[in-house]
Amino acid sequence: MKLARLVLPAAFLLLLGVERLWAQPAAAAAGDTDVGRFLFVLAIMLIAGKISGEAFERLGQPAVVGELVAGVILGGSVLGVIPVHPDDGLSEIVKLFAEVGVLILLFEIGLQTDLKQMFRVGRGASSIALVGAIVPFTLGALYWMSPLVPAELNITSTFTTALFVGATLTATSVGITARVLSDMRVMSSLEAKLIIGAAVLDDILGLVLLGIVATLATGVAVSVFDVGVAFAGAVGFLVVAVAVGFVVAPHIFGIIDRMRVRGVLLVAAFAFALLIAALAEKMGSAMIVGAFAGGIILSRTNQFDTIEAQIKPVADIFTPIFFLSIGAQFDVRLLNVFDPGTHQVLVVGGVLFLIAVVGKVVAGWAVPWRKFNRPLVGFGMMPRGEVGLIFANIGLAAGVLTEALFSAIILMVIGTTLAAPPLVKMCFNRWKTTDPPVG
Amino acid sequence: MKLARLVLPAAFLLLLGVERLWAQPAAAAAGDTDVGRFLFVLAIMLIAGKISGEAFERLGQPAVVGELVAGVILGGSVLGVIPVHPDDGLSEIVKLFAEVGVLILLFEIGLQTDLKQMFRVGRGASSIALVGAIVPFTLGALYWMSPLVPAELNITSTFTTALFVGATLTATSVGITARVLSDMRVMSSLEAKLIIGAAVLDDILGLVLLGIVATLATGVAVSVFDVGVAFAGAVGFLVVAVAVGFVVAPHIFGIIDRMRVRGVLLVAAFAFALLIAALAEKMGSAMIVGAFAGGIILSRTNQFDTIEAQIKPVADIFTPIFFLSIGAQFDVRLLNVFDPGTHQVLVVGGVLFLIAVVGKVVAGWAVPWRKFNRPLVGFGMMPRGEVGLIFANIGLAAGVLTEALFSAIILMVIGTTLAAPPLVKMCFNRWKTTDPPVG
Repeated sequence: MKLARLVLPAAFLLLLGVERLWAQPAAAAAGDTDVGRFLFVLAIMLIAGKISGEAFERLGQPAVVGELVAGVILGGSVLGVIPVHPDDGLSEIVKLFAEVGVLILLFEIGLQTDLKQMFRVGRGASSIALVGAIVPFTLGALYWMSPLVPAELNITSTFTTALFVGATLTATSVGITARVLSDMRVMSSLEAKLIIGAAVLDDILGLVLLGIVATLATGVAVSVFDVGVAFAGAVGFLVVAVAVGFVVAPHIFGIIDRMRVRGVLLVAAFAFALLIAALAEKMGSAMIVGAFAGGIILSRTNQFDTIEAQIKPVADIFTPIFFLSIGAQFDVRLLNVFDPGTHQVLVVGGVLFLIAVVGKVVAGWAVPWRKFNRPLVGFGMMPRGEVGLIFANIGLAAGVLTEALFSAIILMVIGTTLAAPPLVKMCFNRWKTTDPPVG
Repeated sequence: MKLARLVLPAAFLLLLGVERLWAQPAAAAAGDTDVGRFLFVLAIMLIAGKISGEAFERLGQPAVVGELVAGVILGGSVLGVIPVHPDDGLSEIVKLFAEVGVLILLFEIGLQTDLKQMFRVGRGASSIALVGAIVPFTLGALYWMSPLVPAELNITSTFTTALFVGATLTATSVGITARVLSDMRVMSSLEAKLIIGAAVLDDILGLVLLGIVATLATGVAVSVFDVGVAFAGAVGFLVVAVAVGFVVAPHIFGIIDRMRVRGVLLVAAFAFALLIAALAEKMGSAMIVGAFAGGIILSRTNQFDTIEAQIKPVADIFTPIFFLSIGAQFDVRLLNVFDPGTHQVLVVGGVLFLIAVVGKVVAGWAVPWRKFNRPLVGFGMMPRGEVGLIFANIGLAAGVLTEALFSAIILMVIGTTLAAPPLVKMCFNRWKTTDPPVG
């Protein structure tokens, strides 16, 4: 039995050794994709994610943290198995698999969302989203304009940089929390509904902000009118898509029900999710908002149960890739306290992390008229993810952020993402969850 | 009801219109992958494949032919929705999804393969594979050295070109026939076992041939010893992998059985298939042979039923992409009989097609000591696919094949692929299948 425990780790180390031999410059130099290497990398990611996820679950932590940690270890700064460098042709492809993974995750969440109950918590979710976006944005921007910031990190346009810093702190990464809540089997609780609802609104707010600060970075003036139009467009997409979808989808899936070719229902549902995600992006909303809308729409069809059961195996394979990819982007060298060069990055990253935590945790108290597990909602809103990373990338490219500030923001994003799952779990263990309002 | 029938086609035409607006040069110019467009293309491929598959099934034809036809229509030469041109960044990614699709298909076939029964038909399968490789190779090479070939198509090195032409005719594309047999629910028949067994051996033969002719194309001499080594390596991989796998896999999956993290069994099985496919390629065998071996190995584990049930939805999504991609590579302009430029391509393609058909159909009579549906086996061995296309690509790049000859070979590959399913179905309807030997 004890020997059996060593089989998996030993086999895994062997695999890693083989991978090192594989990743030779010859393969990278050729223009064509090295399919064999891609399959190998994908397999190692999946195996490492499951072993690490299992270990974390046995330690009483959510499996998703294990996947993030496995991603860090396999990532660019440690073992270098997961390709993250843009020069490596595979990094684009792994990123794409990761994006499909997060889309399927949001689609699954949408399928499990009861819209009527969501509306019943609509006012609460809006308050949480607004407070959770405004507080960290303001704190972040104020911090950056304050004399507390190391002079070396500051560059010419302090105001624009401050807006960027604030903006990176706003959008919640719903994926992480949703996985944690789903792993804990409390997706139907009031807390879960508030978090998911607020996070979706948050994402929309974040994307509007992105449009504005990206324009600011180019030096063009932006009017309140432009902001209004962008916001209306993003919210409008979600409302129109779901409204139209509720009318059209049952007809389409009624026809599909009469088709008999193998796999037609799952393929139709999957294609539907992809289409609406692509459409959402085209309309100025976010792909993940589209995938979520797709899930909500299909939750009203008659074949809902079958779709949910059949999309699960597909999600099992794709979703971990997303979490491993996020982990892989973290550079552990930023944690080296003995290197004076990283000190200011650590300090600024630490302050941004604190602002990120406080800014979202207070949002748990934004709904005084309802009783629920406030710390759980606050910590659940904490993880920043894709949208924050997109902000940071744009700021760096536009010259509004320095390399050091960019690294500090990454530190904040990864920190909130890693810290949220155990904190949510802890709050759940202490105060449990609340049933959503009925009627 | 009649109006309802128009909903799907109308919605689909609308989608195609949107796609045309999408595929603007601006997106192609940017270095980054346009994720939105990729999702859109994937969704259109899946939807078109299912609609067309359904239509063909209702006409009494296998669904896979519908997917191929949908691929042709969405492909580079008609609507141009499926990216096939190497300049388009998406074409690599679609190709990758297609390759994962064929791997999952072969893995599924491996799972359903009873190795003991396979051994019981081993002598028969070997005879079929040998006859089905030697006859078309010889006929193809002889044809090319004969005076029947239009002079314009011939270039300097006639003998090397003749070997290439022969080689493109050898390897059976097991994917098409396996789908047809699986759609007809006769995977457990003697005929299916003979075809799958022979096709796997065929693939190994084809890959050895590929190594030899590719070396010939560079002008280096190849000894009989080299051929022997290559062949032993490819067959050896399959034997060793399955032998080692039978011993090791039950232990590994015994450990996995005690793990409780979500989706661990499916992810482990999927990763296992990817690993062994990558390893097979690294060892000089083919990825699809590796995936097939992976399926055979896992068919002996205790969790076999669950793996088979959970991989099915994943296969439902990935496999059609493979068949649509094959269809997309076909240039319908080659069928234009009014263009004198395509005449010789049509003639040569037609002759190669006849050789391809005759060469495999005679293989049905290569096992005189057993009674079974011989035409079904012969036509089942008929489709050429990936391996043939790989040969053609290498020959074109090495200057051994002209553009016109390349097109003629593509015509042969697509022709055999499109013609096989209805012929197999026809043979099945007329003479049924035979039960495999018991004992």
